[in-house]
Amino acid sequence: MERLQVNIPGTTAYDVMIADGLRRELNEYIADSYSSILIIADRHVADLYMDDITNVLKTRGNIFCKVIPPGEGTKSMEWYDRLLDYCISCNLDRKSLIIALGGGMTGDLAGFVAATYLRGISYIQIPTSILAHDSSVGGKVAINHKAGKNLIGAFHHPDKVLFDTEMIDSLPLKEKRSGYGEVVKHALLSDKSWFDEIMERELKELENHKAARDLIRGVRLKASIVEQDEKEAGVRKYLNLGHTLAHAIETELDYGSVTHGEAVVIGIIFALSLSGMEEERNRLLVWADNNGYPLEVVGELDERKLLEHMKRDKKAERGKINYVLLQAVGSPYVSHVEEDELLHALKQFKNEVIE
Amino acid sequence: MERLQVNIPGTTAYDVMIADGLRRELNEYIADSYSSILIIADRHVADLYMDDITNVLKTRGNIFCKVIPPGEGTKSMEWYDRLLDYCISCNLDRKSLIIALGGGMTGDLAGFVAATYLRGISYIQIPTSILAHDSSVGGKVAINHKAGKNLIGAFHHPDKVLFDTEMIDSLPLKEKRSGYGEVVKHALLSDKSWFDEIMERELKELENHKAARDLIRGVRLKASIVEQDEKEAGVRKYLNLGHTLAHAIETELDYGSVTHGEAVVIGIIFALSLSGMEEERNRLLVWADNNGYPLEVVGELDERKLLEHMKRDKKAERGKINYVLLQAVGSPYVSHVEEDELLHALKQFKNEVIE
Repeated sequence: MERLQVNIPGTTAYDVMIADGLRRELNEYIADSYSSILIIADRHVADLYMDDITNVLKTRGNIFCKVIPPGEGTKSMEWYDRLLDYCISCNLDRKSLIIALGGGMTGDLAGFVAATYLRGISYIQIPTSILAHDSSVGGKVAINHKAGKNLIGAFHHPDKVLFDTEMIDSLPLKEKRSGYGEVVKHALLSDKSWFDEIMERELKELENHKAARDLIRGVRLKASIVEQDEKEAGVRKYLNLGHTLAHAIETELDYGSVTHGEAVVIGIIFALSLSGMEEERNRLLVWADNNGYPLEVVGELDERKLLEHMKRDKKAERGKINYVLLQAVGSPYVSHVEEDELLHALKQFKNEVIE
Repeated sequence: MERLQVNIPGTTAYDVMIADGLRRELNEYIADSYSSILIIADRHVADLYMDDITNVLKTRGNIFCKVIPPGEGTKSMEWYDRLLDYCISCNLDRKSLIIALGGGMTGDLAGFVAATYLRGISYIQIPTSILAHDSSVGGKVAINHKAGKNLIGAFHHPDKVLFDTEMIDSLPLKEKRSGYGEVVKHALLSDKSWFDEIMERELKELENHKAARDLIRGVRLKASIVEQDEKEAGVRKYLNLGHTLAHAIETELDYGSVTHGEAVVIGIIFALSLSGMEEERNRLLVWADNNGYPLEVVGELDERKLLEHMKRDKKAERGKINYVLLQAVGSPYVSHVEEDELLHALKQFKNEVIE
């Protein structure tokens, strides 16, 4: 088992535990001081794992389950409100626990419920996707608004993150692609050798032990950044590499046809262009194409609309767009990019990518 | 001017400033680094003071105003959602400021919007009621749920609290009564001489300088408690004196006919009964009656329903009701009270109060 502590100075510290089959040993890692437990999962995940989890926890009283619709559309004000209603109907109190069993959507939504129900109760993340290795660490929780992704949210750290790497096997290819969006990002923020390694991965034949290793490296990077800068005043901004365009694409497509990580890969390719890192950009473009990333959606997008979404990005200040760029692999920086420049670059990007 | 710093260890520190006519000098006390400012006030308060505030701030660009309906009913999920929409339509960014101009309702609602918009932006409280001297300090922000008061919320501290004591003059008597609910509570948590003083106050002829003094003492007490225990793990619970029943009454009456502070006074009388403090109970009962507190509502309430609401109180744990009681004036403690005992005491209380 890999065990890693995330230490948020002055706030909290929590363990991230990563092991094959961890879901069957949950009872050992979830404190028995919680007065009741509500497990939230989407329908797909619930079908696969809800029984395992409730079985393991069945010796405890007061276990509630809530199944929500899959898909980013559920990360809405409407479902936030419904889940709060459900918490109340289960009489959850301040000593209760919410378990977010699922991908990033479930973690963000259930985490935001936990952050605000009774002004904050405990939650534990049990990520079931590769993508969620990223979102489950760091305490960012949120719901979407029609005007943009994650516009409403909070910082609320989990009591624990328990990652069962066995679950990676059952992921559909689209989910693996999505997960590797954040893995590619972490590699580009870390070091070239890891990026080189990933450019060798064929997601169709992804080996579990390799994925687990990428995931552990990703969590380690994420934890070290969050420890330095919980509230994104400095280095945490780097984690937005590729996300400014990704969020704009997701908003424009109404969180529909493209997954988050797929959009992130497209966003990273664009950020590499903006950074003038042609070699890495070209390698990533080829890798993304080989692995079935939906690059063709770029052709359908209107660059002016994308720009409007970018200006609403949480990182925007006084209407100016702050972009995370790279000097080299492992050397990110933040730079204001002018609207005209972005518009020009987006046009060029469309032409190049859909060739 | 009274200036008082609230120091939340490891989190933040902010000034509470109290002075006659302070609203006309706001420009000096609000940093000019905010990229835009959204002022939220209810219709009554906006009619009285919105012009003063916008006039003072008019040299700055990007000032937005949002007027909301008066009354506790506005502290709802619906208005929370609407205000978030408004923040987005004003393009508020992470450097923007929300000003909560008003009583506790406005502070709680606007504060919760500030706490969760873009995962948290700055806000400043400009309380316009006596009651809000309490709620504006301490960082508790929330909205109501039909199942209970303040069930959804966060801890989010303001950048500043700016209290213009001139505003006290324009308060209707009902508002003064409401404000003195929290003042009575603060006195009972502090010392007997202050409680004695308040028992001499006639709210109909409340003198501004006396009210200002009560208010400053209240803020000082509140600040010192919040500094010791931001998240209500210990001593902050004492501030709930009278609130368990008060919240139940408000929920049962659907936040309608009785104001918060009026309900708190009724709740405190009941807590004094439970504490066996007959003398103080009787003095407070007479004082409340003389000052027009709506004690008669107690007769209309069903004690079983009140009990159900109390069990949903945020302080309840595993269905047990935790009650703040007094050993003596200035010596609060928390005790589990059994349901049967509460039910019996509520019945008796009804009989005694409506005599």
